[in-house]
Amino acid sequence: MVNVSIIGASGYTGGELIRLLEKHPNVEIDSVTSRQYESQPVYEIHKNLRGSDLLFENLKPSEISSEIVFTATPHGSSMKIIPDLLENGSKVIDLSGDYRFRDFSKYEKYYGLDHTAPLDAVYGLPEIYREEIKKANLIANPGCFPTGAILSSLPLSKSQLIDRIIFDSKTGVSGGGISPSEAFHFPNVSDNVNPYNIVAHRHGPEIQQELQEYSDVKVSFTPHLVPVIRGILTTAHSFPDFSKITSNNDISKDNYISKENTISKDNDIESIVEYIHNLYLKQYDGEPFVKVLDIGEIPKLSSVRGSNFAHIGGFEIDENGRLVIISAIDNLVKGASGQAIHNMNLMCGFKEDEGISHYGMAP
Amino acid sequence: MVNVSIIGASGYTGGELIRLLEKHPNVEIDSVTSRQYESQPVYEIHKNLRGSDLLFENLKPSEISSEIVFTATPHGSSMKIIPDLLENGSKVIDLSGDYRFRDFSKYEKYYGLDHTAPLDAVYGLPEIYREEIKKANLIANPGCFPTGAILSSLPLSKSQLIDRIIFDSKTGVSGGGISPSEAFHFPNVSDNVNPYNIVAHRHGPEIQQELQEYSDVKVSFTPHLVPVIRGILTTAHSFPDFSKITSNNDISKDNYISKENTISKDNDIESIVEYIHNLYLKQYDGEPFVKVLDIGEIPKLSSVRGSNFAHIGGFEIDENGRLVIISAIDNLVKGASGQAIHNMNLMCGFKEDEGISHYGMAP
Amino acid sequence: MVNVSIIGASGYTGGELIRLLEKHPNVEIDSVTSRQYESQPVYEIHKNLRGSDLLFENLKPSEISSEIVFTATPHGSSMKIIPDLLENGSKVIDLSGDYRFRDFSKYEKYYGLDHTAPLDAVYGLPEIYREEIKKANLIANPGCFPTGAILSSLPLSKSQLIDRIIFDSKTGVSGGGISPSEAFHFPNVSDNVNPYNIVAHRHGPEIQQELQEYSDVKVSFTPHLVPVIRGILTTAHSFPDFSKITSNNDISKDNYISKENTISKDNDIESIVEYIHNLYLKQYDGEPFVKVLDIGEIPKLSSVRGSNFAHIGGFEIDENGRLVIISAIDNLVKGASGQAIHNMNLMCGFKEDEGISHYGMAP
Amino acid sequence: MVNVSIIGASGYTGGELIRLLEKHPNVEIDSVTSRQYESQPVYEIHKNLRGSDLLFENLKPSEISSEIVFTATPHGSSMKIIPDLLENGSKVIDLSGDYRFRDFSKYEKYYGLDHTAPLDAVYGLPEIYREEIKKANLIANPGCFPTGAILSSLPLSKSQLIDRIIFDSKTGVSGGGISPSEAFHFPNVSDNVNPYNIVAHRHGPEIQQELQEYSDVKVSFTPHLVPVIRGILTTAHSFPDFSKITSNNDISKDNYISKENTISKDNDIESIVEYIHNLYLKQYDGEPFVKVLDIGEIPKLSSVRGSNFAHIGGFEIDENGRLVIISAIDNLVKGASGQAIHNMNLMCGFKEDEGISHYGMAP
Repeated sequence: MVNVSIIGASGYTGGELIRLLEKHPNVEIDSVTSRQYESQPVYEIHKNLRGSDLLFENLKPSEISSEIVFTATPHGSSMKIIPDLLENGSKVIDLSGDYRFRDFSKYEKYYGLDHTAPLDAVYGLPEIYREEIKKANLIANPGCFPTGAILSSLPLSKSQLIDRIIFDSKTGVSGGGISPSEAFHFPNVSDNVNPYNIVAHRHGPEIQQELQEYSDVKVSFTPHLVPVIRGILTTAHSFPDFSKITSNNDISKDNYISKENTISKDNDIESIVEYIHNLYLKQYDGEPFVKVLDIGEIPKLSSVRGSNFAHIGGFEIDENGRLVIISAIDNLVKGASGQAIHNMNLMCGFKEDEGISHYGMAP
Repeated sequence: MVNVSIIGASGYTGGELIRLLEKHPNVEIDSVTSRQYESQPVYEIHKNLRGSDLLFENLKPSEISSEIVFTATPHGSSMKIIPDLLENGSKVIDLSGDYRFRDFSKYEKYYGLDHTAPLDAVYGLPEIYREEIKKANLIANPGCFPTGAILSSLPLSKSQLIDRIIFDSKTGVSGGGISPSEAFHFPNVSDNVNPYNIVAHRHGPEIQQELQEYSDVKVSFTPHLVPVIRGILTTAHSFPDFSKITSNNDISKDNYISKENTISKDNDIESIVEYIHNLYLKQYDGEPFVKVLDIGEIPKLSSVRGSNFAHIGGFEIDENGRLVIISAIDNLVKGASGQAIHNMNLMCGFKEDEGISHYGMAP
Repeated sequence: MVNVSIIGASGYTGGELIRLLEKHPNVEIDSVTSRQYESQPVYEIHKNLRGSDLLFENLKPSEISSEIVFTATPHGSSMKIIPDLLENGSKVIDLSGDYRFRDFSKYEKYYGLDHTAPLDAVYGLPEIYREEIKKANLIANPGCFPTGAILSSLPLSKSQLIDRIIFDSKTGVSGGGISPSEAFHFPNVSDNVNPYNIVAHRHGPEIQQELQEYSDVKVSFTPHLVPVIRGILTTAHSFPDFSKITSNNDISKDNYISKENTISKDNDIESIVEYIHNLYLKQYDGEPFVKVLDIGEIPKLSSVRGSNFAHIGGFEIDENGRLVIISAIDNLVKGASGQAIHNMNLMCGFKEDEGISHYGMAP
Repeated sequence: MVNVSIIGASGYTGGELIRLLEKHPNVEIDSVTSRQYESQPVYEIHKNLRGSDLLFENLKPSEISSEIVFTATPHGSSMKIIPDLLENGSKVIDLSGDYRFRDFSKYEKYYGLDHTAPLDAVYGLPEIYREEIKKANLIANPGCFPTGAILSSLPLSKSQLIDRIIFDSKTGVSGGGISPSEAFHFPNVSDNVNPYNIVAHRHGPEIQQELQEYSDVKVSFTPHLVPVIRGILTTAHSFPDFSKITSNNDISKDNYISKENTISKDNDIESIVEYIHNLYLKQYDGEPFVKVLDIGEIPKLSSVRGSNFAHIGGFEIDENGRLVIISAIDNLVKGASGQAIHNMNLMCGFKEDEGISHYGMAP
C-alpha cells in the first residue's frame, strides 16, 4: 500500500490519474490539489468521476507528505515545487517537461525558460530505464509524442541502421489540455487536419536525446492535430542502411550487433523486413505494455484507447528503400498518466501492470 | 469463481464481454464462440484485446456446460439455442431481444418473427428486478434504448404523474453493430444526424411494457443516429399533471404515493422540480450504477463512456409545463455487456459492481 | 446592381455573407467592418476567402451609405447602430435577435436587456412575409432554430391541428459562433451530445410568436449541441387532434380550412398522413428553397450543407398518435446569411435565388 | 455552350460533377448514366441534388454523342468504353486511373490489370499541362493524392533540389467512395487514424512519374485515413541540397535554374526559406486555383472544402535540414470533379474558373 498525492489535478492528466489511482488496489489517495477549485468535489470538474468523494484542496508542497507525489503541473511550475517535495521525503513523478532534458541548457533553449532547480531525474520510460526507475526519487515522465516515437524506433537506433528519421505524428486534441482555445475550437478541428510547430516542437529534441544514446541519428518531427479526442499515431519514416544488416547486430548489447540473423546485401526485402521485425520482437520481449504486431499489421488508436498499451506495427519497405514503422498509444495513458502509474508501480515494487492492466476500449 | 461462455463473441457486445470478463476477478472464461472466425485468436477481430490468448471456437450449445452463458447472438438466433443451454444446466443471460417481451405476441408483432421457444425470463434491469434476477435461470438483458429511457422516467410512471412521454434519443453508431452498411458509412454519419424508425422502433414498446407496470403511460420514441461511437443520450419530454403532486406519493410502495413532500397546486415551479428530483433521489438511493445529478445539471456521454454508470439529470420545467429529464449511458456497457455482467454478479452472489466498477473515460 | 456593406464581418455569419455576396452577380461590396481586425485582409480571418482583396475597415455607421447594410453584430449591439443606418438611407438586414420580437417586452424578458431603439421591423422569413419583406426598410433575420422549427410546423398551426408542439433540435457547433469556449472545446463536443438551455432558450418564444399568429399553440423547445460543424436538424413531436381534419381546412386562407381532402375520424393513419403531407406540399408549392420530401423520407444535414435549402420530411404517426416532422437546414446559410441574402434579393427585386441557388454539399 | 454527359454518375465524383455542372452557365447536361439506378431521379441517390430533374439513364457508349463526356467509372471500366466514345467524336475526361500512366506497363504493374486499350492521353493537371489540355481529346484526370502532392513539390523537383521526398498524406473518407466497407465503418474511422497501403499505394508511382519529368527524385508515399469527410492534407518531407541553391535556378526554363536570388552556402535558413518560397510564388503566379500561402502559414482543409483551390504552405526547415511543405485540397473537387471541369473549361475555351470559382466552405 502506498499513499499518494496529485498536485494540479484539475487538468486532463490529473483527471486520468484520479480515474486510475482510485481503483488501484495498492494505492490510497491522500490529497488532490487545485488552487482554482479548492473545496469542490473532483466530480464537478471531472464529471466522469461522479461517485468519488475526493475534494480538491489548496495545499502547499510543505503540507504534502505522501510517499509518492505526482506533479501534473505545467512546465515551469513543476520545478518550483519539486525541490520542497523531495525535501519532505516524497518521491516525485513529474508529468511536466521540466526534467526531461538531461542537459538543462536544452531545456532553456527549447522551453524558453531559465531552469531554477536543476536536479538529477530518471527519464521515466520503463522500456529503457526500468532499473533506474526502481531506485529513483525523481522521475521525468516522458512526453506523449516521445513515448510513441521512441518506442517505434529504439531498435533502429540501437542497431545503427539509420542516420535520420522523420516522425510524422497525428495526435488527438486532449494532448492540448483542458483549456479552450482557438486551436481547439470544435469547428476548427472537426473535419480538419492541423499541422503545428511543424519544425520546432519541443518533443523533437526530447526524442533525439533518447535515440542518440545509441547512435548519431538525426530526428525530424512534425505533429498534426487530428479530429480525435485521444491517441497518438506516429508514422516513422526512415531509410535504413541495409548493408549494415550484415554486421551482426547483437541485441543483448546496448547498441546491439546481432550474431545470428545475418543478412547479406543481396537478400530480398522480405528477409530484411523479417530481420527488422525480429529486432523489435526481441527488444520488447516480456514487456507488459508494448505489443509488436505482425508484419504488415497496422496499429489502431482504438486498440489502445484508454489503456497503457503501445502497439507497434507496419514494418514495410517501399521500392525506394523507405522503411515505415507505426506506433499507437493513448496520449493520456501510456503517453502520460498510465506511464506515471507504471513508474510508481516500479518504484513501489508492485506488479508492473497493477491498476493499469485493462484493455483498450474499442470501438 | 464462476466459469462462463460467450456465444457469438465476434460482435461488439461480445467484444465488450471479453474485455470486461477477462479482468473480472471471479470469472474464468471457458469458451468464446464464433462460427466465422473459428480457431482465430480473439485479438485478430477485437484488436484491442491483443494480449489475450483466447481463441474463437465453433461449439454447439450441447458442447457448452459453463455455469453462466452469455448469448450475444442476433434476435431470432438466441431462441434457437437457449433451450438447450438451459437443459444443460447453464444459466443464460441473453443480450438479444428474444426474451424481452413478456407477452410473446408483442415479440411476433414487433420483430416480425414467430417465437419458437417462449420461456419465462426475467427482464434484466437490476434497478427494477434485482431480487428476481438473483434467482433467475434466464435473463433478458434489456435493450440499449430502454435501459436509458426507463431509468430516466421510472419515478414519473410510479408516481402516476404522466400519461404520455416522448423519448427523443441520440445514439452512437456502435449500437448498430460491427457490420458495415450504408447507414453506418462514415461519410453518411459524420457531420450528420440521422433519425431512423422514427415512429416504429422495437424499443418503443419495450419501454412501454416496463413503464406500464405502474401506470397507463403511453410511450412515444424516436432514435437518432449521431456521429458518436458510443453512448445514448435520451431526452425525455413529458407534461406531468402537477395537480397530482398533492396526492401524497409514497415512494416506499411500488406505485408510490408519498406521505410527505406534499405540494399544493399553487406551489411554484421550483418546489415542483425539487419534489420530482426527490423522487429520483429516493428511487435510486443506494443503486451502485445510477447517479442522479443535481437539478439543472446535464448528463454527458463522456461521463459514462466505457462505464456501467447511468447519469440522470435535467429536471427542468418550461413555461408551458413541459418537464425535461435527460439520461446518459454507454450503450455497449450499461446498455448491453456491462449490465449483463451486473446481472451475472447478482446471480452469482458477487459484489454487485465487481469487474465493472471503473469510472467512465473522459475526455 | 446593389452596393452593400457588412457590419461585424469577422464572425461566422459575416464570413458566410462575404463568401456568398462576393460571387453574387448583382452585388458590389462597399465595405466590411471589424474593429478588431481593422486593415487586415479578410482572408487572414476567414482563410477560405484567400483570393479576396477585401480589407476589414473600422467604420462608424455614419460613414456607411450602402443601399443595403447587413448587421452581423451581436444582439444588444445592432440596436445601437441601426437607427443611424436607417437615417442615412440604408435598408438594413439585421442578423441579431434585436428586432425579432414584435413585442419588445419579450425581448427585454428573454434577452435580459433594455431595448433602446424599438422600431418596426419585418420578420425575414420569406415563406411567411415575402410581400412585407419586399417593402421593408428593416428586416429582422430569423434565428437559426426558429427558421427550421417554424418551417417544420407552419401548416400544423395554420390548420389548427395542434395545441402543443415539442421541438427537439440538434445543432452544429458553428451556431455558437467563432469564439472558443469550454462548451465548444473539441474534447467536450466530439463523441458527445450536449443539451443546453433545455427549457429556456430564447429561440423558443421566437418560434411561438410566429406559430401563434395562426392558433394558440404552445411551443416547447430544447436544443442539443451535436458533434457537427453546420446544420440544424429539428424533430417536431406533436399530437394533432385528428378529429379536426374533418373540418375542411382551406389552405388558401391564412388559417386554412380545406374544402377537399376531408378525412373522417374513422380514417386510417395512412390517409391522415397523406392529408398532412398534402398541407405541406400546398404550403410550400413554388417556394424556391423549401423541399417537402416524400412521406417517410428523412432529411439529412448533408443534403442542405452549405446551401439555402430547407428539407422537410418524416410525416409519420406512431401508435400513440404522435406525429413526427423533421426539418434540416444549414444554420449559417438558410439559418442566417443565406436567408439574409434571400431577403436582400426580395428587397432589390432580384431573382429570389440569385447567388444562393447552389446545391448542398454531400458527402 | 457545351453539352456533356457523365458516365457512372451514381458515385461521389459523379455526384460532384452534377452538383457543379448543373449550375455551370455554359453547360447543358445531356445525360447522366447509371445501370443500377436506371430511371431514378438523381436526387434519390444524391439527396443534396433535390430540385434537379435529371434521371439516371442506362446508356451504351454508342448512344452518347455529347461534345464532352466525363467517365466517372472505376479503373478497368473506363478503358472499355473510352475508345467508343472517342470514335463517336466526343472528347473524354476520364476520372479513373486507366490513362494516368504514360508507360502502360506501369499501369499493369500497379493496377494488376492488362490494359486493353492503350491510347495517348494528356495528364489533366492544368498547372503543368495547360496547353496540351486545350488540344486534347482524352484527359487522364489526376489522382486525388497526386494532385496535392505534385503541386506541393513541383518547384523542388524543377529546381533539382531534392533526390528523395516523402509524402505523408491524410485523407478524408470520401476518397474511398460511396460503397460501405469495414474500412469505412463509422466506428472504425471515427476517433482513429488509419494508415493503409503504407508502402504500395498506386498513387505513389503516379506522383513519381510527374516529378521525374524534371529530376531523378524518388518518391515515397503513405496515405492515412482520418476522420474527415473531404480533403487531403499532404505533408511533404524532404532534405534539399541547399548547396544547389547557388546554382542559379531560372524558373523560366522547364527545369529551372534561377539567375537571381542566388544564395551562398553560408546563407542562413531564412534566406533559403525565402528562396524556396519564391520558387513557389513564381511557379504558381497567375494560376487561378493555386494559392501559395505566406511562409509559416499552414493550409487548412476547411479553407478549400468544397472548392477547386489548392493551398500550399509551411515552407519551414528544421535544425536537421528537413524542409516541410504542406498542401491542402478537396479530394472530390480539385482532386477529382472540379479539376475535371477545369479541364473541360480549357478544352472548350471557357473562362478557366467558370462554374468552379466559388470559395471553400468554412467553418
